[in-house]
Amino acid sequence: MDLVIVGSVAFDAIETPFGKTDKIVGGAGTYISYAASFFVEKAGLVSVVGDDFPDETISELESRGVDTAGLQIKKGEKSFFWKGKYHNDMNSRDTLVTELNVLADFNPVLPAAYRKARFLMLGNLAPAVQLQVIEQFDQRPELIAMDTMNFWMDSALDDLKKVISKVDIITINDEEARQLTGEYSLVKAAQKVLEMGPKYIVIKKGENGALLFDRNKQVFFAPALPLEEVFDPTGAGDSFAGGFMGQIASTRDTSFEGLKRAVIMGSATASFCVEKFGVERLQNITEEEFDERVSAFVNLTQFDITLAE
Amino acid sequence: MDLVIVGSVAFDAIETPFGKTDKIVGGAGTYISYAASFFVEKAGLVSVVGDDFPDETISELESRGVDTAGLQIKKGEKSFFWKGKYHNDMNSRDTLVTELNVLADFNPVLPAAYRKARFLMLGNLAPAVQLQVIEQFDQRPELIAMDTMNFWMDSALDDLKKVISKVDIITINDEEARQLTGEYSLVKAAQKVLEMGPKYIVIKKGENGALLFDRNKQVFFAPALPLEEVFDPTGAGDSFAGGFMGQIASTRDTSFEGLKRAVIMGSATASFCVEKFGVERLQNITEEEFDERVSAFVNLTQFDITLAE
Repeated sequence: MDLVIVGSVAFDAIETPFGKTDKIVGGAGTYISYAASFFVEKAGLVSVVGDDFPDETISELESRGVDTAGLQIKKGEKSFFWKGKYHNDMNSRDTLVTELNVLADFNPVLPAAYRKARFLMLGNLAPAVQLQVIEQFDQRPELIAMDTMNFWMDSALDDLKKVISKVDIITINDEEARQLTGEYSLVKAAQKVLEMGPKYIVIKKGENGALLFDRNKQVFFAPALPLEEVFDPTGAGDSFAGGFMGQIASTRDTSFEGLKRAVIMGSATASFCVEKFGVERLQNITEEEFDERVSAFVNLTQFDITLAE
Repeated sequence: MDLVIVGSVAFDAIETPFGKTDKIVGGAGTYISYAASFFVEKAGLVSVVGDDFPDETISELESRGVDTAGLQIKKGEKSFFWKGKYHNDMNSRDTLVTELNVLADFNPVLPAAYRKARFLMLGNLAPAVQLQVIEQFDQRPELIAMDTMNFWMDSALDDLKKVISKVDIITINDEEARQLTGEYSLVKAAQKVLEMGPKYIVIKKGENGALLFDRNKQVFFAPALPLEEVFDPTGAGDSFAGGFMGQIASTRDTSFEGLKRAVIMGSATASFCVEKFGVERLQNITEEEFDERVSAFVNLTQFDITLAE
């Protein structure tokens, strides 16, 4: 088991300026799993669904090396459901429906094989659930990353701070970093979050890329790939997290240079996710396409300036 | 004469969340000149001021290698004045006062020594004035860059399109690129602008960096340097343009790789500009500080991923 992934496995209904979907498979845990499966041999997924969730998706995840022994299936209950509509600029969205269903009283249980994993990715979920997962490990994972969102800052700040104090990496978007710290400057916000416990923070800025900071004031930036169309941004942040942690778990490289490469891999993965609704594009990335995408990032960002010593 | 610079030389009064100024020296031509003077031996400034404009600033520009034979001084008239107030996010501002004064009937006259220059930077001004400048060259400059703004799209679109058709590089911000083309996607907007004439477009995204596109769909991105505080964003775009064209004019390198380096140099120059009100910081950059800043860009953006061939 290289990587344990925790996060919602759910249904989404999405409307964008380009079209709309009925209920399709979504959820942070789902996006992270599809993304990470491109990198790691064996991941374990911890989540909960109702018996309305399609067996085929579970089988497909298994076929990609995602173990689903940690995925509880609740008989007679319904999976988490989110319905949202994106505005024309694709950077903001309205939530139209949120049905917690099985997530309302989710008690994660880690199968024995998961409890010795070296790497843990805590997708966005109630901080209390994220804590329960950390506590079930036989030994602390080598590296724990977490994602969260503003909802938990409003409703469960104390628990959230407890989780933040226990992780190595937090991924968070720019507005959330500002809300959590009261600092407008992302440089100051990052340093304040790092004082809360993590060694690294990744601030996600959507179409404006992602920033990685460490405690020694090292900073790395990766842009989002400029695309002709962003078709559906749902899951972009989770795909980033999956690619990022998948790269780290598969290389076991936790140096700053290694994390930089992981940011690029996460950004490349996210650039596929937004091309179609749901996980559709993540299901169909070839190795060749992925290498082309990474090449595009190299061309987009690398330059040659030699400074006198 | 390496580079001819056209743009307003003026007074600004600025209010930001960090403080406010009385009338201080500003204007696109001023910022571009200070920025470019860091790179080129000899630039020529084409603009107009009233006799209220401080002699010391003109002398200081001269001492930096900025020839001011093309700067008209109108006796008994007043210099252009702009007063504005930035909102808390520093990304938007309200114009409180605009007094055109001498700019209302500006007829640029290029001294003979300017008319053979290899490089021309047309700062934001009425498109008709930009056209008059191009027409006074004895031979077309090797490379012409222009800046503009939404005001001219609303009030002088035909003239603006004429200028755009005559230049090699246009710098423009993201909202202006969208307004000019009706395309929300910056990739599509860039291609549409390139169909109007220029070989290259730089789309400036403020704190979110800058994108360089060519007609062969090559793209390069440079982030803005993450700063603890952006003290005063006034002149950042003009400082970018001055550093960008200063680098090109001093190296005479107009290859795509050369333009990439120029984007980094422009971004580094702009990162100084925003640290203090007006041109104050641009007046006091040491070579060592500049090299450190470029190093910071290298650290911020460069990574090492080797792809299999």
